[in-house]
Amino acid sequence: MLDWEHIFATRATRMRASEIRELLKLLDRPEIISFAGGIPDPALFPKEVFAAAYTRVLTGPAAGTALQYAVSEGNLALRTWLAGYMASLGVACDASNIIITSGSQQALDYIGKLFLSPGDTALVNWPTYLGALQAFNAYEPRYDRLIPLGNRPAEDFATAARDAGGAVKFAYASADFANPTGETLDRATREKILDLADTLDIAVIEDAAYQSLRYDGEAIPPMLALDIARKGHINDTRVLYCGSFSKTLSPGLRVGWICAAAPVISKIVLLKQAADLNTSTINQMVLADVAETYFDTQVATIKAAYRARRDAMLKALDTHLPAGCSWSKPDGGMFVWVTVPEGLDGATLLARSLETVKVAFVPGKAFFADGSGGNTLRLSFSCANEAQIEEGISRLGKLLTEAIAGL
Amino acid sequence: MLDWEHIFATRATRMRASEIRELLKLLDRPEIISFAGGIPDPALFPKEVFAAAYTRVLTGPAAGTALQYAVSEGNLALRTWLAGYMASLGVACDASNIIITSGSQQALDYIGKLFLSPGDTALVNWPTYLGALQAFNAYEPRYDRLIPLGNRPAEDFATAARDAGGAVKFAYASADFANPTGETLDRATREKILDLADTLDIAVIEDAAYQSLRYDGEAIPPMLALDIARKGHINDTRVLYCGSFSKTLSPGLRVGWICAAAPVISKIVLLKQAADLNTSTINQMVLADVAETYFDTQVATIKAAYRARRDAMLKALDTHLPAGCSWSKPDGGMFVWVTVPEGLDGATLLARSLETVKVAFVPGKAFFADGSGGNTLRLSFSCANEAQIEEGISRLGKLLTEAIAGL
Repeated sequence: MLDWEHIFATRATRMRASEIRELLKLLDRPEIISFAGGIPDPALFPKEVFAAAYTRVLTGPAAGTALQYAVSEGNLALRTWLAGYMASLGVACDASNIIITSGSQQALDYIGKLFLSPGDTALVNWPTYLGALQAFNAYEPRYDRLIPLGNRPAEDFATAARDAGGAVKFAYASADFANPTGETLDRATREKILDLADTLDIAVIEDAAYQSLRYDGEAIPPMLALDIARKGHINDTRVLYCGSFSKTLSPGLRVGWICAAAPVISKIVLLKQAADLNTSTINQMVLADVAETYFDTQVATIKAAYRARRDAMLKALDTHLPAGCSWSKPDGGMFVWVTVPEGLDGATLLARSLETVKVAFVPGKAFFADGSGGNTLRLSFSCANEAQIEEGISRLGKLLTEAIAGL
Repeated sequence: MLDWEHIFATRATRMRASEIRELLKLLDRPEIISFAGGIPDPALFPKEVFAAAYTRVLTGPAAGTALQYAVSEGNLALRTWLAGYMASLGVACDASNIIITSGSQQALDYIGKLFLSPGDTALVNWPTYLGALQAFNAYEPRYDRLIPLGNRPAEDFATAARDAGGAVKFAYASADFANPTGETLDRATREKILDLADTLDIAVIEDAAYQSLRYDGEAIPPMLALDIARKGHINDTRVLYCGSFSKTLSPGLRVGWICAAAPVISKIVLLKQAADLNTSTINQMVLADVAETYFDTQVATIKAAYRARRDAMLKALDTHLPAGCSWSKPDGGMFVWVTVPEGLDGATLLARSLETVKVAFVPGKAFFADGSGGNTLRLSFSCANEAQIEEGISRLGKLLTEAIAGL
C-alpha cells in the first residue's frame, strides 16, 4: 500500500474516530440496554406524515423542481417558515438571515471553515459537544475554556490566543439542555458571554440543537435574541444560531439552519456553494410542508415521551446510584451527566459494563478539549422506555457500587 | 454593522460568488434561450419512479431507519450496488472502497480538505471545472497546469511547488466529456497522468460526473481502472474516482460517491463524520432502490435525448457561427466549448447577448485558474430542445458576426 500520510494535509492528523459514532454500532445488539447514542427514538418519527409529504411533492407541479439543483441559501418557503419560528423565540428576522444546512453538524463545519485559521482560538465549555470539537479540529484551532466566566479578565483570553499564534475567533456554547451535560445556561451567563464577545470583538456560536425539548420551567431567550436587544437589529449582532430538525422531526433528512446577521449568511452561502451546492432539494421541500402542518404536534408528542423518560431516569438514579456519584437534573433535552468518584475511569467502566451488566453509555472524557473528565459518563434517556431505564440504571448502580468498593 | 472581515479566517478572502450559480437565476426568465446552466433537463427526471420509491421506503419496515441518523460511510445496499457498477467500468472493488457523499461537489470539498495545506499545489487543466477550483480554494492551494503533458519534466512540478512553500498533492482531471470543454482524455493521456503521479508520489482525482453520458465511440477505461492494472489491486492505487447520480437520476437528492483505496476511504469517513455525520439516510435508501430497478433504463432515455440535442447544436454551430470561431466536438456530456477570436471577451458578449438576442451562456474565463481564456464560451445543450438550439445558435451567430466585424 501507498504511504498516504505524507500526501495528506497537516489537518488530517487531527481526524480521529468518534467514540460515539463507533458506539452506534452497538445499538443493534438486542441484549444491550443503551443509554449511549444521543439520537431520537425512531418509534416517535411521524412516518405517515412524511410519506404523505413526499407523495404530495413528487406528484405535484413542483416535482421537477424537487429533483433538480437549487440555490445554495436554501428553499424560500422553508426559510420563511423558519423566520417565523425564530420570531416566536424572540428573534426578529427574515429569510435573508437564514441559510439551510445539511443538519446543524454541517453548520458547525462551515463555521469552523469561515472563522478558524490554524492556531486561532475557539472558546468552548469543559465539557462540550464532541461533534463541535471534531468539526472545528479540521481547521486546526487551539481551545480555551469559556465557563466558568467571571474572574478571568477578557484581555487574558486575547493575550493567550496571541501568544499561541492566532486570535480568539468565537465562543461556542449550547445554551439549552446541552450535549453532553443536559445543563442550561441561565440568563446571566448568556449575558456574560455576550459581554465577553463584545469586549473581544468575536462571534458567538449558539448551538440550539435541543432548544425545542424543554420539559420544565420557563424558556430563556436565545443569546441571539439577547444580542438583538443590545444592538437593535439582527444584522448588527454577532451571534450565529445553529438550529436543527434532527431532534424534532427527523435526522434522516439532514436539514438544519443558521440564523445570523445577513452579511455572515451571505458569506456562508458562498462557502456552501463551493462545498456541496445545496442541501437536498426534495428534503427541504418536504420539511417546509411537514413543519408548516405538523411541527407543533410532533414537538408536543415527543416532549411528553421524553419527559417521562427523563423522570424515570432521575428517579432510578436516586434509587440505585451509590454515594459518591452525582448527576445533572436537566430541564430538557436527552442527557443526564454523571460524575463518579475520582479514580474511576469512564472507558474502563464501559468495557466492564458491556461485558457484565450489558448497559451502554458514553465515557465523558471525549467531551473535554483538554482530555480531563475521566470520571464522567453521559447517559441518554431518549431511546429507552421507562422499564428499560429502571432496569438499566439498576444494573449500572450495581456496577458502580462494585467499582467504588474496589477503589 | 460589525466589521466581520478581521474575524473571518484567511481562507474566506478566496470565497467569491460563482458566475454560474448567479446565472441560474436567469433561467426563470421565459424570453431567454439558455445554454448556461450545466444541469439536467427536469422534464427527463423519473418522477413517478421516485414517488413510488419514497412511498415504498416510508411505508415499509425500514421507515424508522430511513428517518434516523446513519453511518458516515453510507448505506450498505447502495455501496454494494455501486461496487457492482464500478466493476462494470473495469474497477474491481467492494463496499469498503466506496463512501457516499452529498453529491460529487462534496467529494471535491472533502478531497481538498484531506490533501491541501495552505500553499500546497493542485495540478488542474486550463480550463477546468469551476466548482473544483471553488471547492479547493477554501484550502488555499496554488495551481499548476496539468495538460498538455510531455515536455515538462516531473521534477519541475515538484520544484515549483516547493519554491511556493508546499508540495504537489494531486492532479485533478475530468476524464470524460469534461465540464466545461466537453472533451475526453484519450487513453495515452490518462496513462501519462498516472506516470506523472507515480513519479511525484501524489494522488489523482478523477471527476466522473458525466461518465455515463457517452453518445459516440468506445468507452475508455477510467484512470482508476488503469491504475488497478498497474498496481494489481484497488487498495494499492492512488486514484480517487468521484461519481454522481446528479447527471443521471437526480441532483435534488444530493447523492454521489468516491471510489478509492480502502485506507483513503476510511480517512474520508472520519472527515465526513465530523463535517455532516451522513448523507440523507432516506435519499440513500431511495437511490439504492431506484438504481437497482431503473438506472439502465434512465441512462438509455437521457442519452437518446441529449445525443439529439448535441447533434442539433453541432449542426447549428456549423451553419451559423462566423469564420474565426471554433468549438469542441464532444462524444458525450452536456457541453460544447467555443473559442472566439482574440480581442472578444466572453463576459462582454454575455451582457450584450442577454440585452439584444436573449441567449445565455457562460463566459469561459472563470474556468481558468490563471484568469486567461477571456475569448471562450461554454454552451450547454442539456436543457434546450432542438428548435430552441437552432434558434438560439442562430441568434448567437448574428451576435458574434457583429462583434467580429466591430473588432
